[in-house]
Amino acid sequence: MMQRHDAPEGDVGSLSSEDIDELLAAGEDGGPMVPRGKIIALEGIDGTGKSHVSQRVVEHLEAREVSTIITSEPTEGAVGRLIKRVTEEGVDPYTELFLFMADRADHVQWMAARMREGNWIVCDRYAMSSAAYQGTYLEEEWETKGRDPVAWIMEMHRPWWIAPDLTVLIVDDIDRCLDRVGKRGQATKFERRDYLERVQANYLRIAETTDGVVVVDDPDLEDIVVAVLGRVEAMLGRSKV
Amino acid sequence: MMQRHDAPEGDVGSLSSEDIDELLAAGEDGGPMVPRGKIIALEGIDGTGKSHVSQRVVEHLEAREVSTIITSEPTEGAVGRLIKRVTEEGVDPYTELFLFMADRADHVQWMAARMREGNWIVCDRYAMSSAAYQGTYLEEEWETKGRDPVAWIMEMHRPWWIAPDLTVLIVDDIDRCLDRVGKRGQATKFERRDYLERVQANYLRIAETTDGVVVVDDPDLEDIVVAVLGRVEAMLGRSKV
Repeated sequence: MMQRHDAPEGDVGSLSSEDIDELLAAGEDGGPMVPRGKIIALEGIDGTGKSHVSQRVVEHLEAREVSTIITSEPTEGAVGRLIKRVTEEGVDPYTELFLFMADRADHVQWMAARMREGNWIVCDRYAMSSAAYQGTYLEEEWETKGRDPVAWIMEMHRPWWIAPDLTVLIVDDIDRCLDRVGKRGQATKFERRDYLERVQANYLRIAETTDGVVVVDDPDLEDIVVAVLGRVEAMLGRSKV
Repeated sequence: MMQRHDAPEGDVGSLSSEDIDELLAAGEDGGPMVPRGKIIALEGIDGTGKSHVSQRVVEHLEAREVSTIITSEPTEGAVGRLIKRVTEEGVDPYTELFLFMADRADHVQWMAARMREGNWIVCDRYAMSSAAYQGTYLEEEWETKGRDPVAWIMEMHRPWWIAPDLTVLIVDDIDRCLDRVGKRGQATKFERRDYLERVQANYLRIAETTDGVVVVDDPDLEDIVVAVLGRVEAMLGRSKV
């Protein structure tokens, strides 16, 4: 089963990763224990091949008979649609940040409900994207405050997100990424070369201090796929391919 | 001039209270120094008379020839309108919290631009409302975490909000408030009696640890008005009325 959700649904209350562990261990409502699904998050700037790798991970999991749901942020829900609209129109950076977090909070509940049913989740962009993109945007302003907005954004997620079981951060040459998405020479906010350099540097900085992140940096996308599938096999408790 | 805004506009970048002080002291763009407006926030549960008191404060400031803008949260902007829609439909509590913060971030920029023009702002509900309402909603879940969601929400505002120069917290008997808004016996999420008791207790708890908050607790609304106008006079540098 491969699904793409249109709008968050379901309601499992507000759960942290630990709550979900507890809930699943206990069997909610006194019911039978359910296997816990896992979350694999794909991160990186546009043009690194996240979507292709996500797709291959899903195909691989399906071949291993693991029911997998592919999803992405921003979502197609009401908040996600508003994000797409306002980021095109231009928006205050904090408004943008909190809209992404609002959309994610809804998404977390949606994913939790599906994980409880035993599904694995492959998520194209997750919390690290907010820290890298919106954090980079705030860095200049925050320089005078002596605080790190990237760390601040990650920290704000801790009470309520579900930490991914695996985060794959794909890094690549910025120009090659811009070429791939056909955006070289364009200068919208999220696509400026210097901005993307700093976003990618911040992605790498977060990866150093966050558990469960694997950084892949290979010019050959198929080599990346093989490396990621090796990690997925390890998660399934099999020997690496 | 009394205005009610329809949608946030203007762009002064992302400013903290300190940034604004600096900006105003320096005269932005090398221009002349501009007088700084002030923010007066009105807080409390529905039915305490916030709107009436706000109105009287505005009339008083106008009589003192202080250009004043009355505004409220959630705003009438795109995010504020989404909040009104999703809270009626039911929404994840974290999504709700971050939507209020997204709306507020936009509102802060809008208010900052008007303060720079010398206006005073009277704001019906501000950050403390998120801490009291959404914080109360999260308390039960957070009990096991040993963390305080009310303090967490206030803390998340500090890097970017403008702290009010005066916050007036009006407290009153819950039943009297429910009677005033004609909602006694109703049981929507924001109107349940036991919930409102805890919201009001959290308002009072925040007031104890926050600068510039005056708590008014008087059965006579006109007495409240007189007390608040005394504070406003003190802000204007006049003797109390």
